[in-house]
Amino acid sequence: MAKYSVILGNVGNFSDRYMTCGYQKEYTLEELFDRVKSIKGVTGVELVGTWHITPDNAKRVKENLERTGLELVSIIPENFGRPEYGKGAYSSKDAAIRRKAVDETKEIIDIARFLGGDLLSLWPGQDGYDYHFQGDYLEEHGWFIDSVRECCKHRPDVKISIEYKPREPRNFSYPATAASTLLMVNEVGLPNCGVTVDYGHGTAAHENVAESVAILKKYGDKLFHIHMNDNYGEWDDDMITGSIHTIPFIEFFYWLKRTGYDGYISTDQYPYREDGRDACNESVRWFDILYGMADKIDDAEIKKIYQTGNACEISAFLRKLMFNDTSK
Amino acid sequence: MAKYSVILGNVGNFSDRYMTCGYQKEYTLEELFDRVKSIKGVTGVELVGTWHITPDNAKRVKENLERTGLELVSIIPENFGRPEYGKGAYSSKDAAIRRKAVDETKEIIDIARFLGGDLLSLWPGQDGYDYHFQGDYLEEHGWFIDSVRECCKHRPDVKISIEYKPREPRNFSYPATAASTLLMVNEVGLPNCGVTVDYGHGTAAHENVAESVAILKKYGDKLFHIHMNDNYGEWDDDMITGSIHTIPFIEFFYWLKRTGYDGYISTDQYPYREDGRDACNESVRWFDILYGMADKIDDAEIKKIYQTGNACEISAFLRKLMFNDTSK
Amino acid sequence: MAKYSVILGNVGNFSDRYMTCGYQKEYTLEELFDRVKSIKGVTGVELVGTWHITPDNAKRVKENLERTGLELVSIIPENFGRPEYGKGAYSSKDAAIRRKAVDETKEIIDIARFLGGDLLSLWPGQDGYDYHFQGDYLEEHGWFIDSVRECCKHRPDVKISIEYKPREPRNFSYPATAASTLLMVNEVGLPNCGVTVDYGHGTAAHENVAESVAILKKYGDKLFHIHMNDNYGEWDDDMITGSIHTIPFIEFFYWLKRTGYDGYISTDQYPYREDGRDACNESVRWFDILYGMADKIDDAEIKKIYQTGNACEISAFLRKLMFNDTSK
Amino acid sequence: MAKYSVILGNVGNFSDRYMTCGYQKEYTLEELFDRVKSIKGVTGVELVGTWHITPDNAKRVKENLERTGLELVSIIPENFGRPEYGKGAYSSKDAAIRRKAVDETKEIIDIARFLGGDLLSLWPGQDGYDYHFQGDYLEEHGWFIDSVRECCKHRPDVKISIEYKPREPRNFSYPATAASTLLMVNEVGLPNCGVTVDYGHGTAAHENVAESVAILKKYGDKLFHIHMNDNYGEWDDDMITGSIHTIPFIEFFYWLKRTGYDGYISTDQYPYREDGRDACNESVRWFDILYGMADKIDDAEIKKIYQTGNACEISAFLRKLMFNDTSK
Repeated sequence: MAKYSVILGNVGNFSDRYMTCGYQKEYTLEELFDRVKSIKGVTGVELVGTWHITPDNAKRVKENLERTGLELVSIIPENFGRPEYGKGAYSSKDAAIRRKAVDETKEIIDIARFLGGDLLSLWPGQDGYDYHFQGDYLEEHGWFIDSVRECCKHRPDVKISIEYKPREPRNFSYPATAASTLLMVNEVGLPNCGVTVDYGHGTAAHENVAESVAILKKYGDKLFHIHMNDNYGEWDDDMITGSIHTIPFIEFFYWLKRTGYDGYISTDQYPYREDGRDACNESVRWFDILYGMADKIDDAEIKKIYQTGNACEISAFLRKLMFNDTSK
Repeated sequence: MAKYSVILGNVGNFSDRYMTCGYQKEYTLEELFDRVKSIKGVTGVELVGTWHITPDNAKRVKENLERTGLELVSIIPENFGRPEYGKGAYSSKDAAIRRKAVDETKEIIDIARFLGGDLLSLWPGQDGYDYHFQGDYLEEHGWFIDSVRECCKHRPDVKISIEYKPREPRNFSYPATAASTLLMVNEVGLPNCGVTVDYGHGTAAHENVAESVAILKKYGDKLFHIHMNDNYGEWDDDMITGSIHTIPFIEFFYWLKRTGYDGYISTDQYPYREDGRDACNESVRWFDILYGMADKIDDAEIKKIYQTGNACEISAFLRKLMFNDTSK
Repeated sequence: MAKYSVILGNVGNFSDRYMTCGYQKEYTLEELFDRVKSIKGVTGVELVGTWHITPDNAKRVKENLERTGLELVSIIPENFGRPEYGKGAYSSKDAAIRRKAVDETKEIIDIARFLGGDLLSLWPGQDGYDYHFQGDYLEEHGWFIDSVRECCKHRPDVKISIEYKPREPRNFSYPATAASTLLMVNEVGLPNCGVTVDYGHGTAAHENVAESVAILKKYGDKLFHIHMNDNYGEWDDDMITGSIHTIPFIEFFYWLKRTGYDGYISTDQYPYREDGRDACNESVRWFDILYGMADKIDDAEIKKIYQTGNACEISAFLRKLMFNDTSK
Repeated sequence: MAKYSVILGNVGNFSDRYMTCGYQKEYTLEELFDRVKSIKGVTGVELVGTWHITPDNAKRVKENLERTGLELVSIIPENFGRPEYGKGAYSSKDAAIRRKAVDETKEIIDIARFLGGDLLSLWPGQDGYDYHFQGDYLEEHGWFIDSVRECCKHRPDVKISIEYKPREPRNFSYPATAASTLLMVNEVGLPNCGVTVDYGHGTAAHENVAESVAILKKYGDKLFHIHMNDNYGEWDDDMITGSIHTIPFIEFFYWLKRTGYDGYISTDQYPYREDGRDACNESVRWFDILYGMADKIDDAEIKKIYQTGNACEISAFLRKLMFNDTSK
């Protein structure tokens, strides 16, 4: 049985580089929690550091978790939205910035424990580079790994899961793909260090994300967390899951089940022009449909499919699975 | 009611640059016709010049058309598979090659009439360029238009429909997108000159092909023919229609219907590793499903959707249309 | 002799969807003008409506123009950065928003004349759609054209130049490519309506922008204005011109010269993490190098190149042109 | 000092899926060797199994190597151009095919030793999948690794270097990126197993290949071989190196030098419409220019660049390095 959660900010307001003021109205913390809670089937919530959770408001957040009964699924430290982090956090060329990023992350780890959480999903958005000859790749990969390792050692009972993304806001991110992030995580070399798959980041990296799930299983068993959304295949459009693709998600959910993933499946969207609560609700409704189809795949039937890999048989199998169509 | 056809070679053998000998076995002309005929719902066939139809075998082709009862939907002149056309046909830098391409096209027009056809789908695959500073764009666009205009004038009762593609085999094709081809077609300025949409070529050009259908309607009413297949969004993978995408095809078929398209919908695939007949059959089975969904869209309901463009309402509308899901 | 200008905001501060507060510090209008003025070779400036120029500050802007001696090259009306325009301006589903967009544009036209300008570069960033089944393409293309036509008629002595972009902030923009925008402009059907090429937008649309210049010449002679920057080929990264590509810019400048373009060449960058003034200066320095190379191409030599299109001769020609390398 | 080689077939004839007969004329083995030999600065040659080298013609090949004095740089086993390998070789669903692929590879290893070579560059082009639900990723990654490990154990004095490519001829390849291939190579776990970087494959995978060189250094020191060509960033266009990009190659060569790569740099092109010998010659001429620029970068100067990563300083540094331009 899949467990669904929502990143708190997904039901709020959204800016881009042209509409810096935001497309929507602002909501209070309590309203955001209520909006998440109102989505049928959602039992967890993710928070972003500084945007939703700080040392100062931890008690208020705890009250909201208790009031709504939502589980704290993860905290995403915010080291990508303040100018001091504009050129990187864990791999910054400036040792003082790396120090600050690590110290803040440790603080967030402690807050996560205080709130009953055991997972940080790191999205080091500014760790990377824009121009040729800008990044000293050997140095900066090394700094990144050292920083993350130190965070992981702070509390072995809290998992640190690195969310990869090929680009944006940097033109090249260091944790760029499932495979490149696994290389880093294996170099960190600690059991509480793993990988977050954001479906749309994988797609923007031109991965077949179902295969990425298998890769994360095979080369270290390191899939710690899932973020969901949809896009057109080239950029992190952060749209409603299921609004563009159908079959790829069924395969993805099949491989989650096949590899025994039992964590939360979380929305991670930017519904700039939609009501955020409704847009997350739509994703969850599609989760039910698409996960449901993956769930009803017959083991013997799929095994037979894989034995030959005949694309015409796959096509007929999917027509039947999706639309109960059995025409020849 | 949609009409379906198949390009004859789609049920045959396929090569690529590494497997020049072909992945499959070869079939006789008669076998190819029989294989097309065996696909339920297919009533038409398209032929490729030199590969399937020449002045020498026109009678044999006619017998096959009569024997199978398949309608000749179009002929695609072959001016992309012989070395003399390797650097272009209608826009070749060599006037003698342009002459040859035009003369051969006129000959094919006459053959089409002999076989009962009234449509040529031109796919000028070699007309374009590979390197910067290689194409003299002004000259070559001009030559292309002059050549096509001369073909169009040969017989006003035969339509000449230009199939665009952003690239391959050239790195840049001259008829590259729906819009750039419309500019050319409008410059040709004859009623029998129009545009063929290959769904996968449009996708590889990063078009939302449903919008391309509307553009072809609005700026000249020039959509003359349709080729179908699926791909991952970056290259002309020529896969089974419906094997990757679902919703985009429903929108596409909706816009075909909305704009009054009443021509054939033809497969155009390269099932390298599949049985070609079975792969085309799967596409046609998906046409039935996806066109069927487009067909049952309620006019009042979709009009209401378009009035606001609310993405959450669209999502709920599609869940209901596709899977009869009405959860809130 | 090329004329260079800078969009005023290019030397200021920059936000993205994560760093909404901006990566840099803010500058006063006077400081921005001074920073543009300090770049050697720049003689013009472009302004963005509401961000830099409103009815209220027109006099102050005029004083800055006079003080610095910079020519007003164009104004870009801002109908993409206020929430009321979040779902479109000239093609909005809401007739009142279309009205407002047109009225504001007319007002900006009058201000441009007051400031000595004769060009508006329209960038209708929000005119487009995100989701399948969201845009009623026939209606909305029609509204777009009607709105722009009304603006063009306001003052025939002011050119209205539409800047295309394939996507962002919408997932699909209506004026998406050089060719699709030409179709619109030709439908507007007025001599003061044309097209702005943003080099990076063209690249993100997978155009060879040199060919786009030729297309704009051939199908209407409609190239009215140029914006410059560089990117990796898939997104509007808005980087320093010349920081990634070299040869493609030489070809582009060659075709500007070949087609007789005599307008301004303007930077349009988003140097998030750089000093904006220095980043624009670097682009202008590269303009000098790359335009200089295009300028010294010998007519007879290039004509010979185009006669055969031999890629090896092109390569040797470029080695010599760029690096004076004549090795065999 | 860089060492240059050419893949023998690069100076021959080329087919694609439309021009299966080839764009050029055929050459004898002796002619191919002579054509490679005629390129100034080339001292090595690579061979493709079955196309150039078999057990039957090994002696004739040896004579050609001796006659021309060219060093055998590597052999690329051919398990992608015969129909039995159409659905995979080392990871085929059919155990008999996997057996055959491994046995043939061992045979090629022995031939390489006979010819004085110590490197196989494996390009497992058919190992991958096309459709969702076609590949059993866990099984097939496992089979791939087992097959390669067995090859590596055959002779520890011959290096087995896996050449990754994101796609083509399969829509998804198993060794897809530098990082995913490193995961496989590290799983093989033998010192003679490494990675071949094909510059264009890396680019088509949207890698900054200079960073890939650093990654291959950092996470296992596994860069064994280099193939060179150029493309537009989305597909393996296999063009003349330097015909599109300039700065990215300078950075790439800088990182080769920085990480101590001392192997051959080989052309790997498909000059469909060019004379192959001349096209390879052009690449080698550009190697001289671009490698030469990387080579003259001053250590202290670049160290200072990396300390801040200031994009404007990088831009000025490159203007000076490339064009001796020092304008401010």
